[in-house]
Amino acid sequence: MTVTARTIVLAARPDGAPEPSDFRMESAVLPEPGQGEVLLQTLWLSLDPYMRGRMSEGPSYAAATELGQSLPTEAVARVLASGDAAFRVGDIVAVHDQWRDHMIRNAGDLRKLDPTQAPVQTALGVMGMPGMTAYTGLKHIGKPKAGETVVVGAASGAVGALVGQMARLGGARAVGLAGGADKCAYVTDTLGFDACIDRNAPDMAAQLAAACPKGIDVYFELTGGAIFDAVLPLLNPFARVPVCGTIATYNATRLPAGPDRTPALLRAILTKSLTFRGFIVSEFWGDAPEFYHQMADWLKASDIRYREDVTEGLDQMVPTFIGMLEGRNFGKTLIKLAD
Amino acid sequence: MTVTARTIVLAARPDGAPEPSDFRMESAVLPEPGQGEVLLQTLWLSLDPYMRGRMSEGPSYAAATELGQSLPTEAVARVLASGDAAFRVGDIVAVHDQWRDHMIRNAGDLRKLDPTQAPVQTALGVMGMPGMTAYTGLKHIGKPKAGETVVVGAASGAVGALVGQMARLGGARAVGLAGGADKCAYVTDTLGFDACIDRNAPDMAAQLAAACPKGIDVYFELTGGAIFDAVLPLLNPFARVPVCGTIATYNATRLPAGPDRTPALLRAILTKSLTFRGFIVSEFWGDAPEFYHQMADWLKASDIRYREDVTEGLDQMVPTFIGMLEGRNFGKTLIKLAD
Repeated sequence: MTVTARTIVLAARPDGAPEPSDFRMESAVLPEPGQGEVLLQTLWLSLDPYMRGRMSEGPSYAAATELGQSLPTEAVARVLASGDAAFRVGDIVAVHDQWRDHMIRNAGDLRKLDPTQAPVQTALGVMGMPGMTAYTGLKHIGKPKAGETVVVGAASGAVGALVGQMARLGGARAVGLAGGADKCAYVTDTLGFDACIDRNAPDMAAQLAAACPKGIDVYFELTGGAIFDAVLPLLNPFARVPVCGTIATYNATRLPAGPDRTPALLRAILTKSLTFRGFIVSEFWGDAPEFYHQMADWLKASDIRYREDVTEGLDQMVPTFIGMLEGRNFGKTLIKLAD
Repeated sequence: MTVTARTIVLAARPDGAPEPSDFRMESAVLPEPGQGEVLLQTLWLSLDPYMRGRMSEGPSYAAATELGQSLPTEAVARVLASGDAAFRVGDIVAVHDQWRDHMIRNAGDLRKLDPTQAPVQTALGVMGMPGMTAYTGLKHIGKPKAGETVVVGAASGAVGALVGQMARLGGARAVGLAGGADKCAYVTDTLGFDACIDRNAPDMAAQLAAACPKGIDVYFELTGGAIFDAVLPLLNPFARVPVCGTIATYNATRLPAGPDRTPALLRAILTKSLTFRGFIVSEFWGDAPEFYHQMADWLKASDIRYREDVTEGLDQMVPTFIGMLEGRNFGKTLIKLAD
């Protein structure tokens, strides 16, 4: 079997918001898979905000993607040909891969999925990295107690939606922020958050304060920016802030104008005994078995709901990514490449 | 017995650095102690940077001192007259009190000291609040491991000196910063830190980087300001930052000029999985018995050294406090009122 793989590579480092010209499609014919290797066809690709960080040089938790190289993602793929006894043609797998439609990988890199248990693309969302992120960030850092108030921005997104629902399953109050009335309605009516505030409302900070009459005990940081500014004065003594992302600032090319509020942030941390803790989900991979088990139970009981924002075709990967950074997605952003 | 108590009260809220005119001395004749009360003569008063916070309005962990009221401090005092069977004339006690030379207090507020075990004024330093602060901040938040690098500013001060020595007792490397060559020599030669950098050196940040070739694992935050700025880029992944004070900014009347580096701080927390945790020693009072026991052992073995900066007379309380905020003290700042 001869297969041509199309791969999106980084053509230039984005200056601020990424543009289509920062990316380039390349093609290559793949060889037969060797011993212990598997030839895979991508069915689904995940788009997540963290990918923006890999496009820039500078300190981050992972090295920047080199120019001319492809970008990281999570993929769900089907086995087209196998050189390993553990995988058969037609098997569906999850794999940490790249922005491409076919690939040859070592069998040891693959996690087999059971399509009868859940839609396979949930391995990129609730049953995958975003789910683990919400779960472990709350378990190890946020630690919401019953009756406490948990706030999360990007509340209709892949991680935020889960943070609020998991907080409520533990007896806490969940307040979200999202972009626009439709998303806010979804967050309260479908996801069951206690309140959701339009992040674009001119009185967003006042609305947030009103929605948190007992202050904020856990702020799950996904956005940074204006939402962080509104949250900080509302944090209660001993509040916990898992710092998971700052999507509002990912495209920034320079720091905002002054004054420099760093001393005020340190002073708030001091005087309110706050905990700020950054984390990357990979720190907590050891929780994966527990997480898969718990999430499967929640899904079975309809305790957790999720929404997918699906766009078809590898050609749409870049424009969809650009739109996601602008908040144009509504739910977990997925690219579907094949049935 | 009739005793006149002199008390320093807050006459005006300092605008920036406190000035002598922000304070006023008042006198009052004290009555006889009633049932369960004790009349005390102050022997020693403690001056600590946190007191600056109580002089200003605005969010803090404790309410601001009212104008016309005295200020908080820790005191060592002698019993002059007792209305409580647990205390006899001549007993020496430690008490959380005010800037004054005599007082009447409830017996239940007093902790009796044993003058044969350690100089009584150590109850204001190594055997008191500063000691507990260093001990519990490291135990619960900093958690230095053997071989790790611990950095602290104000390294010749009451808390900083202990942070580095305790870190070394646990097998970590201790790097301090202090103001001037004399203090730095004391920090390395007497306290045994592995290195100490003059915080006023023009190449302070470069010197700090050179003194921390394996990065920084624990930064015990006492100072904020330029030291914080020099530390942040050196923090290792998973570094811990107990936020205990920011003395460099206590007298600031406005935030520094821009840009606003808050997003950069959040990004550093995120990408390096940092922990920032503010704390006030009162959170950990439960550790007091363990701490007194451990510190007594350390002192007995000469494992912990300390230096006192003693000024005599209640009249010197205010100028000494002003000088301490400028870094003019060298060691634990104490006011001696009587033998």
